[in-house]
Amino acid sequence: MAKKIITISRQFGSGGRGIAKEIANRLGYDYYDKEIIDQVAEESGFSKDYIEELGEHAPGKTTFSYGFETHGVPGVMNGMSTLDYLWCSQRKVICDIADKGRPCVIVGRNADYILRDRDDVLNVFIHADEEFRKNRIIEYGETKGDPIKVMNSHDKKRKSNYKHYTDRDWGHSVNYDLCLDTGRLGIEKCINLILAAVES
Amino acid sequence: MAKKIITISRQFGSGGRGIAKEIANRLGYDYYDKEIIDQVAEESGFSKDYIEELGEHAPGKTTFSYGFETHGVPGVMNGMSTLDYLWCSQRKVICDIADKGRPCVIVGRNADYILRDRDDVLNVFIHADEEFRKNRIIEYGETKGDPIKVMNSHDKKRKSNYKHYTDRDWGHSVNYDLCLDTGRLGIEKCINLILAAVES
Repeated sequence: MAKKIITISRQFGSGGRGIAKEIANRLGYDYYDKEIIDQVAEESGFSKDYIEELGEHAPGKTTFSYGFETHGVPGVMNGMSTLDYLWCSQRKVICDIADKGRPCVIVGRNADYILRDRDDVLNVFIHADEEFRKNRIIEYGETKGDPIKVMNSHDKKRKSNYKHYTDRDWGHSVNYDLCLDTGRLGIEKCINLILAAVES
Repeated sequence: MAKKIITISRQFGSGGRGIAKEIANRLGYDYYDKEIIDQVAEESGFSKDYIEELGEHAPGKTTFSYGFETHGVPGVMNGMSTLDYLWCSQRKVICDIADKGRPCVIVGRNADYILRDRDDVLNVFIHADEEFRKNRIIEYGETKGDPIKVMNSHDKKRKSNYKHYTDRDWGHSVNYDLCLDTGRLGIEKCINLILAAVES
């Protein structure tokens, strides 16, 4: 049976988001990326801006940051830090999406870890070397500032967030069914490999 | 252009060796696994047993082990430790194989790192969870002792050896073009995905 749920985790600038969208289009699957933010906002009561900015953060290491996160939001919700509460809301939204039963592609948000025990999920990690990603970032012109600093900053947060909430190494092959280097293989080949992996 | 050289790195018991052999058969590529040991023996002057046992080791951390490795072989060859000399011999053999120009599959031996700058190489990492690998080890009955201990011992040495000689994390997706979980995808699907990745 074909995999009903595909999670795409990715390095910044590797093309993972575009690949996810294309896979969803070609398969006729639902697509969840920033759409999840809307649902998490509803679930948690936080603003979309807050969720978008901090959804990939890991809690800081000090009591100060634990109690006093950003935007003046109280540091504790239901007995947990706001970041932990946000993570739990995100987790619930992702589980609900999976349980709905409709085939879908989900981008990021530790969905690979959250859905790791399901047999109907294909967990994919997309990556490429720094040069390839830097050139893509410049080409698409969507990012302000030094592309290398921007990509490293994003990936560092994803890595910390992943480690904190899953105790795993973000991007290590053992955490995914399929890992693909878009720079070495090419975007189109990566799409085709994922489609082949999804088939029964 | 199709990739002419495929390197297969793998966790013990994941089926990587069998996949490598099958890929070589289906593509009509030369196959290098223990065959490399014969060439390294010729190149280095070491015995095949020594190469097979220690080819995946990393040097120990103490001056004692640096000077006095095993089998009574002198601790220093051409100004380097015997393990370093062995690694250099292995590297030369692998480069010579690649430069011959004949399409081939190479198993292990840090070939992915050694050939990393070539455009005609596909670097693959094969892995699976502990349960899958333990069951395969028991099924094939080739390993004596507790399968979990055996697999972890082999992989620990591979990881140390890789880290020591490449300064990279063995099995991390960023070091390979394609990583595949044989337990989750199935052996046959992994073979087909590699064949698809090799094609131009």
